[in-house]
Amino acid sequence: MLELETRLAQQSMVISTQYPVMVVGGAEDKVNGCDILTAFFESAGGSAAKIGIIPCASREPTVVGDRYYQIFQKMGAQQVQVLDIRYRNECDEARWLEILNDCTGVFVTGGDQLRLCDLVGGTELIKTIKQKVALGQLKLAGTSAGAAMMGDRMIAGGSSGESPNQTLVELTEGLGIIPELLVDQHFHNRNRMARLMSAVAANPDKLGVGIDEDTCAALDGSGVFQVLGKGTVTVIDPGSLTHTNYPQADAAHPLSLHNLKVHVLSKGDRYDYKNRAVLANSGVR
Amino acid sequence: MLELETRLAQQSMVISTQYPVMVVGGAEDKVNGCDILTAFFESAGGSAAKIGIIPCASREPTVVGDRYYQIFQKMGAQQVQVLDIRYRNECDEARWLEILNDCTGVFVTGGDQLRLCDLVGGTELIKTIKQKVALGQLKLAGTSAGAAMMGDRMIAGGSSGESPNQTLVELTEGLGIIPELLVDQHFHNRNRMARLMSAVAANPDKLGVGIDEDTCAALDGSGVFQVLGKGTVTVIDPGSLTHTNYPQADAAHPLSLHNLKVHVLSKGDRYDYKNRAVLANSGVR
Repeated sequence: MLELETRLAQQSMVISTQYPVMVVGGAEDKVNGCDILTAFFESAGGSAAKIGIIPCASREPTVVGDRYYQIFQKMGAQQVQVLDIRYRNECDEARWLEILNDCTGVFVTGGDQLRLCDLVGGTELIKTIKQKVALGQLKLAGTSAGAAMMGDRMIAGGSSGESPNQTLVELTEGLGIIPELLVDQHFHNRNRMARLMSAVAANPDKLGVGIDEDTCAALDGSGVFQVLGKGTVTVIDPGSLTHTNYPQADAAHPLSLHNLKVHVLSKGDRYDYKNRAVLANSGVR
Repeated sequence: MLELETRLAQQSMVISTQYPVMVVGGAEDKVNGCDILTAFFESAGGSAAKIGIIPCASREPTVVGDRYYQIFQKMGAQQVQVLDIRYRNECDEARWLEILNDCTGVFVTGGDQLRLCDLVGGTELIKTIKQKVALGQLKLAGTSAGAAMMGDRMIAGGSSGESPNQTLVELTEGLGIIPELLVDQHFHNRNRMARLMSAVAANPDKLGVGIDEDTCAALDGSGVFQVLGKGTVTVIDPGSLTHTNYPQADAAHPLSLHNLKVHVLSKGDRYDYKNRAVLANSGVR
C-alpha cells in the first residue's frame, strides 16, 4: 500500500513537471532561480535534453540566441543548437529540419512576433514543430513574442493607456499551436488589460490569456495549464458575454463588454482551457 | 395619448440628466465639449446653479479652485464659490457651512485623496454634504481624488506594473458617500487594473469600479449609474468568487481570484450597483 502510494506520488510528480508547451510572459528569470527555464529544461529531458533555440523574432538573433545557449549549456543539456534562421526559405532546408528532428525541446525567444510569423509561418519548420509537439516528441516553449504566436489569432501590436477600443490592438494570424488561446504577455507590467479586452471583443470565440513577466502558463497536454513563476496569468473568458458594441462602435469609441468572466491565477493554479474552468487548487504554493 | 407620451419622454429626459452624485475618473475635458462638467452644471440647476468648489485635495488649491471657478462662471452659474479650506477645524466653521447650505452643487477637485479625507473626513462639512445629497438638495461631483473618496473603503495609493498582490495597494477609510463602491480612477490610463483587483481581494463585499479619464459614473439616485464621457467604467464584481488566496498568501505573493465577473461599460451603459447587473442598453450612443 505504501509502495502504491509512493508510486502514485512519483507518477503525479512526473506528470506535473512535463509540459508539452510552455507559454512564457517575457522577462523570465535568467540569473537566479531560473524556475521557468529550468522547468523547460527538465521537461525537455534534463541532462538528456537536446535543445534548439529559435531566436528569429529578435533583430539581434546572435546575441539573444547565444544568451539562451549559455543558459541551457550551463544547466547541462546534452546538446544545444541555435537555429539562426535569417530568411523564410531557410525554413524548408534540410540542415535545419535535421537539427529540429533531433531536438527534444525548442525554445522560441522574444522579439517581434510579426517578424517571427513572417519568417516561419506555414513553413516546413513550423509544421514539423507542431507535428512533433502533437506526438509528444518535442517540448515547446515561447517567451514574449514566442508566446504571442501561440494562438491562431495573434496580437501583433497595439497601444496602452487608453480605454478598450478597436484601434488599441492589431490582430493577425498566429501559428496556431494552441488555437483556443489569444495570448498577451508582459501583461500587467505593460498595462495590457485594455488591449487584451479589445482583442477578445474582436474574437469572442477565443479565451484571452494575459501572462505577466517571469510567469508561465505551462500546458500539461490534456487541455489544462498550470501557472509557474512569480506573477499572474489573467484569463478573460467571454463565454457568458451578454452584450458588446463591437463592431458597431466607431473605431475609436470605447468598447462595451458585459458579463465577462475573469480569473486571476497565480503559481500552482490550474486552468482547464478546453472546458473553461479553474481546477481545484492542486499546485505547490 | 400623444400628450402622455410627450410628458413621459420629457420626464425620462429630465431623469437622465439629473445626477445626484457624479464620480469622475480625472482629467475631464475642461476646454472643448466639457461634456462631464456641463452635465454636472446642468444637474446642479444650470443658470440657477449655486456651485461650491472644494479644492483641498490639491496642494495648489488656489490655482485648481480658480480653474473650476472660471469654468462654471463661464457656463453661466448663478453663483460660484471656492471653499478654500486649509485646516481641518475650518470644516466646522459657520462661514463655510453657510455657503454650503446655499449651494445646489459641490464639485470636489483632484489632488491627494488622503489629504482630502484628513481635512474633511468626519467634519460638519462632510456630514452636511452627505445629508443634503441624501435629501436631494445638493448635487455632488468628484474627480480623481474627489472620486477616490466616494466609497467607505478608499484606495489611498499604490503602485502599478506588477501582478496583483497585497503590497500593490494602500487602503484606508473613504468618506462613504457610496459605501458599496471601491473606486479607482485614471484607470486604464495609469495601469490600475492590478491594484483595483488587489483592493477587491481585500474587500470582497465591495464592487470595484475603475473609471478612465474624461469618463464618469453618474448616479441617478436609484442605485443605478450611467456612463458619461469618452472612456470606460470597468466593474469588478467578486460576488461569484470561488477562491482567493487572500490573505493567506505572503504579502508580495501574487493573488489568485477565481471567477470574477467583469463589465466594461461605455457611454450610455447603465449599471445597477445595488443588484449588481448591467441594465438593458438605454443610453445615447
